[in-house]
Amino acid sequence: MAPSIAIACEVAAERPAQKPAYTSYGRMAAEFNEVQASRVGHRLQLPSVLKRQFEIVDGPPSSAAGNPDEISKLFPHLFGQPSALLVPSATVTTAASRQSQKIGVVFSGGQAPGGHNVISGIFDYLQEHGKGSTLYGFKGGPAGIMKCKYLDLTADFILPYRNQGGFDMLCSGRDKIETPEQFKQAEETVLKLDLDGLVVIGGDDSNTNACLLAENFRSKNMKTRVIGCPKTIDGDLKCEEVPISFGFDTACKTYAELIGNLMVDSRSSGKYYHFVRLMGRAASHITLQCALETHPNITIIGEEVAAKRLTLKNVTDYIVDVICKRSELGYNYGVVLIPEGLIDFIPEVQQLISELNEILAQGPVDEGGMWKEKLKAQSLQLFEFLPRSIQKQLMLERDPHGNVQVAKIETETMLIQMAEEELEKRQQENKYKGTFKGLSHFFGYEGRCGFPSNFDATYCYSLGYAAAALLHCGKTGLIASVGNLGAPVSEWTVGGTALTSLMDVERRHGKFKPVIKKAMVDLQGAPFKLFAAMREEWALKNRYLSPGPIQFVGPTSHAVNLTLQLELAARARSPGDRIAELQQPNPKTSS
Amino acid sequence: MAPSIAIACEVAAERPAQKPAYTSYGRMAAEFNEVQASRVGHRLQLPSVLKRQFEIVDGPPSSAAGNPDEISKLFPHLFGQPSALLVPSATVTTAASRQSQKIGVVFSGGQAPGGHNVISGIFDYLQEHGKGSTLYGFKGGPAGIMKCKYLDLTADFILPYRNQGGFDMLCSGRDKIETPEQFKQAEETVLKLDLDGLVVIGGDDSNTNACLLAENFRSKNMKTRVIGCPKTIDGDLKCEEVPISFGFDTACKTYAELIGNLMVDSRSSGKYYHFVRLMGRAASHITLQCALETHPNITIIGEEVAAKRLTLKNVTDYIVDVICKRSELGYNYGVVLIPEGLIDFIPEVQQLISELNEILAQGPVDEGGMWKEKLKAQSLQLFEFLPRSIQKQLMLERDPHGNVQVAKIETETMLIQMAEEELEKRQQENKYKGTFKGLSHFFGYEGRCGFPSNFDATYCYSLGYAAAALLHCGKTGLIASVGNLGAPVSEWTVGGTALTSLMDVERRHGKFKPVIKKAMVDLQGAPFKLFAAMREEWALKNRYLSPGPIQFVGPTSHAVNLTLQLELAARARSPGDRIAELQQPNPKTSS
Repeated sequence: MAPSIAIACEVAAERPAQKPAYTSYGRMAAEFNEVQASRVGHRLQLPSVLKRQFEIVDGPPSSAAGNPDEISKLFPHLFGQPSALLVPSATVTTAASRQSQKIGVVFSGGQAPGGHNVISGIFDYLQEHGKGSTLYGFKGGPAGIMKCKYLDLTADFILPYRNQGGFDMLCSGRDKIETPEQFKQAEETVLKLDLDGLVVIGGDDSNTNACLLAENFRSKNMKTRVIGCPKTIDGDLKCEEVPISFGFDTACKTYAELIGNLMVDSRSSGKYYHFVRLMGRAASHITLQCALETHPNITIIGEEVAAKRLTLKNVTDYIVDVICKRSELGYNYGVVLIPEGLIDFIPEVQQLISELNEILAQGPVDEGGMWKEKLKAQSLQLFEFLPRSIQKQLMLERDPHGNVQVAKIETETMLIQMAEEELEKRQQENKYKGTFKGLSHFFGYEGRCGFPSNFDATYCYSLGYAAAALLHCGKTGLIASVGNLGAPVSEWTVGGTALTSLMDVERRHGKFKPVIKKAMVDLQGAPFKLFAAMREEWALKNRYLSPGPIQFVGPTSHAVNLTLQLELAARARSPGDRIAELQQPNPKTSS
Repeated sequence: MAPSIAIACEVAAERPAQKPAYTSYGRMAAEFNEVQASRVGHRLQLPSVLKRQFEIVDGPPSSAAGNPDEISKLFPHLFGQPSALLVPSATVTTAASRQSQKIGVVFSGGQAPGGHNVISGIFDYLQEHGKGSTLYGFKGGPAGIMKCKYLDLTADFILPYRNQGGFDMLCSGRDKIETPEQFKQAEETVLKLDLDGLVVIGGDDSNTNACLLAENFRSKNMKTRVIGCPKTIDGDLKCEEVPISFGFDTACKTYAELIGNLMVDSRSSGKYYHFVRLMGRAASHITLQCALETHPNITIIGEEVAAKRLTLKNVTDYIVDVICKRSELGYNYGVVLIPEGLIDFIPEVQQLISELNEILAQGPVDEGGMWKEKLKAQSLQLFEFLPRSIQKQLMLERDPHGNVQVAKIETETMLIQMAEEELEKRQQENKYKGTFKGLSHFFGYEGRCGFPSNFDATYCYSLGYAAAALLHCGKTGLIASVGNLGAPVSEWTVGGTALTSLMDVERRHGKFKPVIKKAMVDLQGAPFKLFAAMREEWALKNRYLSPGPIQFVGPTSHAVNLTLQLELAARARSPGDRIAELQQPNPKTSS
């Protein structure tokens, strides 16, 4: 317990004597404004099953999302685990289930609104079901596990973070526990802290890592179990049992507010095209969701661009065609949504980037441009076609994984420049008589750390409760899953899904690596289909909607994002069905 | 009435038969989302004085903000007009005050949240106090007056715009009525429509224009009277009787939400400095107000930079000093606020820009850079000191008034680059050991068209009522003023202030031009003083506040911005005092 005390002293040193609610990272209830204070006091609902005695029903053995043979080799102790569902129990709680526990929790990767509520959910579960339990928070992401840097989370400490945005209670990091030495460090930490369980709050990579940790601990007969929680504003970590990752709802609502404002601005002044690039690197869920809520004139969905193998010229032409048609209707203004990772979806650009990556990996390039001779003809042509500023951005240094830093490429500015050039051409050909003024925006960081919407706040709290309950029941290698989200909170289902069931393998450096397959925008899915059916109307008629700022009180404060609503409606199976299904083929009941 | 009917037909043609609430600009109640619908139905309070019989009390004769002799020559018919205050009246309303009126209204200049409520306030006043009145809305700003383009505003037409953001009910424009021909056109329009009055909703320039129109109509014995309304998100149109311009509250709240989010992001990831440029060209009120609500580590106030005659190097050094000190405390992150017009406040940059303006006015410059020889030594030195990208932006084409387009200069990016260079220098000198990663943001258009906050919605509605009441009582050349804003709405005061009393003259092209003096940030004022007292603490300790999204319902939905609160508290005179004061020296009662 020595490190914990040491940290407690640090905290005390930072805390002004007269202001008792200060935390190590600077949150202080006494300094809150009214909204922060009112959110701290916001009471959260729980699914009924979590409010009563429950037991766990196991489903049939699971497989993998792809290459089950390889996954079973990579996770020999965990592969095939069933999904778990909490169901009401008439049994009186056994002494075992009342045992106190030592649990650790960590934030991994980028922030998403609601993370603090996952922790308060875990904490409150332990208070209620495991008197005398301890909750440790690892600081600064997975590195905190490896370096054994943690905080002892108490009720007072957690209080000012309830229903607040950000991950600053513990901070986060992007490190991974990968090498044998790193696994050793993690083992040492969990042994030192005598951890019964660990909750990893993260995206696809972090949950893959959580599963590797679970497998590692299990393989060494260590008692520490690991449960993941689905976090990412990008919305690309989901499956049937995990209908949505937390943070997506809030982030999209924050962006949609701003987009709605820009639409009204656009229509009011009648002279601007607002080009908005939206965070979301690998998948275009955020862009699609924002489009569904606001009805922009032009929306580019990366997955469609990739599926149709569109070129940058195709995308530019589509944008310019809409601008020209609108101009004929008298509208020289509009709003265009672009996903952050757009250029990654364009095959020819991907090709160019991979060639550039290779060239740059060999060392710095010559100023004279001789290096360009190493590009293939098509790539060179594309490179020369790009605006100068984009050429420069492409050459910028890469992220730690060696990838092009997509967030740095101002795709929206690039498309504005390309649209300008094409429009000028059409003007000279007398095919366009309008005026065009593009303004660029990037909405990203603003949406990652907002106050969680009521949906995210409640959902995360349930996820935290679920994670703690699964650990308490002896589960490991699952991702917490809360379902039936279209129903009132009391009817939400609570359980866990085998992380291995979400996995496939990728071949890297001659080895199979497990990866959780990212959930891309499904071009046959209900959200995209609705968008595809409406986009022509939205392009030419102004069907703008202004969602306005997120509301915490009142009639509009419990709206759930359309993407989730549509996906749930398309599935439309009752939780009762699911329980029946889970119970039929291979019923197993544990704790 | 022919044009009105023609426009009505246009509207009908655009309207799908089955969707009856469509308007000419595309707002359709049937297509509203929940928030829009709930805002349309939001009931607004009115000051008590507007709910009962009232009469107008005139104050003493007014003067001008400067050069009263010149102002009196420019406005011979209006100069010296008293302020007017509505007071409860026991008199039974006379037939005259029940007369129907024909009123025109126009949006002038950039959007500000609440504009639609000014119009609904005018409309509702006329419905109540001038049965049979007509309200015309001029389309596309002052050009609509000159070209006699207008809409007949009806209850159905106005309904979907109530409490909604933007100016899209009529759209706006930046034209001015300046030349004799333009005044002639305006006269023709008001004669054709038989207008009793005109309400000009605009900023300082537009209100100056409103006063010139009022003077012109009065000088020709025309019956059309003109009343202005104080609109600008920049907050730089205010005086004692007009405590705030509408839109400032909402825009600042929108920006502060995003800044608060970035602060949490910054603290959560621990690795970014977010540099945020905020709209507000001439004055730094928005930046100051956002700082007061969020407590950023670094805030630059243009007026202070100008008063202290700081150089760009001074500003950079200040920023870098804070970054270095924070790094020593272990904080390699933070938030920096910069006003849009910062570089305009730096004397050496102003000098450079004015030299560049002169050089560019003479025609295009040579690519080789020979033109630089025309710069004075100090300006050349500064120009060469600037990052390349900023040099380019400075040379970009100007706005229609020949000014540098400040919004196009990415000051935040410039400061990031300069900070990087200085930090690298200090690192080499072993004076700095941290890491620095700057991310740039510009918050502007997102805040101009949001749903008005409850304050702006209510304030604007009262302004509209006030404008209509002043016209009804025969007033002209006043700006509507609603005061005592720190009290409950029922106790707000309502009146008008002589536009000439806000004016000074500027010498342009050898002539005196009247201008309403912009209200700059007062370095002796309460808001700046609070900021100055706190900024050191905010710099090094993390006192971040997250205001969160604007709330329309609940305990936090009626908060008023701190700038106004502090200014009102500093003044702290009761409305009773003001009435007494107005009545004493030169009591005159009209209507």
